[in-house]
Amino acid sequence: MAKRTLPLSKVYGLIEPGPVVLLTTARRGRPNVMTLSWHTMMEFEPPLIGCVVSNRSYTFGILKATRECVINIPTAELAARVVGCGNTTGKDCDKFAAFHLTPAPARRVTPPLIAECYANLECKVADTRMVSKYCFFVLEVVQAWIDPAVKHPRTIHHLGWGSFMVAGRAMRLLPG
Amino acid sequence: MAKRTLPLSKVYGLIEPGPVVLLTTARRGRPNVMTLSWHTMMEFEPPLIGCVVSNRSYTFGILKATRECVINIPTAELAARVVGCGNTTGKDCDKFAAFHLTPAPARRVTPPLIAECYANLECKVADTRMVSKYCFFVLEVVQAWIDPAVKHPRTIHHLGWGSFMVAGRAMRLLPG
Repeated sequence: MAKRTLPLSKVYGLIEPGPVVLLTTARRGRPNVMTLSWHTMMEFEPPLIGCVVSNRSYTFGILKATRECVINIPTAELAARVVGCGNTTGKDCDKFAAFHLTPAPARRVTPPLIAECYANLECKVADTRMVSKYCFFVLEVVQAWIDPAVKHPRTIHHLGWGSFMVAGRAMRLLPG
Repeated sequence: MAKRTLPLSKVYGLIEPGPVVLLTTARRGRPNVMTLSWHTMMEFEPPLIGCVVSNRSYTFGILKATRECVINIPTAELAARVVGCGNTTGKDCDKFAAFHLTPAPARRVTPPLIAECYANLECKVADTRMVSKYCFFVLEVVQAWIDPAVKHPRTIHHLGWGSFMVAGRAMRLLPG
């Protein structure tokens, strides 16, 4: 087997590439956005999503206190703005204004949807047992929105170190 | 905003598409494989990976008892075999033989690597606190292997309901 060992510091680039998402939160009427790609489905219905929100992020304290957020899924057209949101902090910056993102009202939670994203998942925090050790929040999706015009969303997948993969061709594979 | 609501039962197809992986385990000298796509990075180094292994799967009991596994990352050439492993149980079937997968010895754990996969992550179970409620295991990667010849791995990403997306073009986006 012509394989070599991979430094453990590089493992994340292999596993990370779920769709990069934008997480919106709000506190005292002020919305914020962060870029996130460490997430996983945990249950089909009601949908549970686990995600890691660093405790060094401005979002962490807001999410912990308000227990509400929206997961917004961007496509490749928004890539530069997604990276911008990931490299700035909402502490002193209105990222909606800075990156030309349009907040739209959610139905079941206070944080806004991002209009430019093709899908939006309104979430409430369902479990915080793993927050102190891993910054891992379990979210329950309580309302979901999708743009029916987007048939093959070109989602963005982070490969690490500033490299991204754009969703490619679809294929259908049914049980044989 | 021309969006419609999405039934909550369909949310998983939006969030799931990390790379589909093959999880190998072993008990009493008998290796097994399952297909899995509900996983996320949780820490960079040592790399921690959280993943959901259904308690209806044959792997669940083995992983809980042995606390070892290998995450093998396949590319599109293996798609039919990946689906096959996902639609059979190892209880009565040797999936390595059935799907022509080659076991190769790991260095730090008992379960084998799958030689055909371009990357292999040897893992030990690090935290089981979320297993009873969510079937969620926290794994620590203790050894990682990669095929240096595979520069742009065409990983497979499950979109739900038998549809998959193959990793597309790469793009580089540095902080502006």
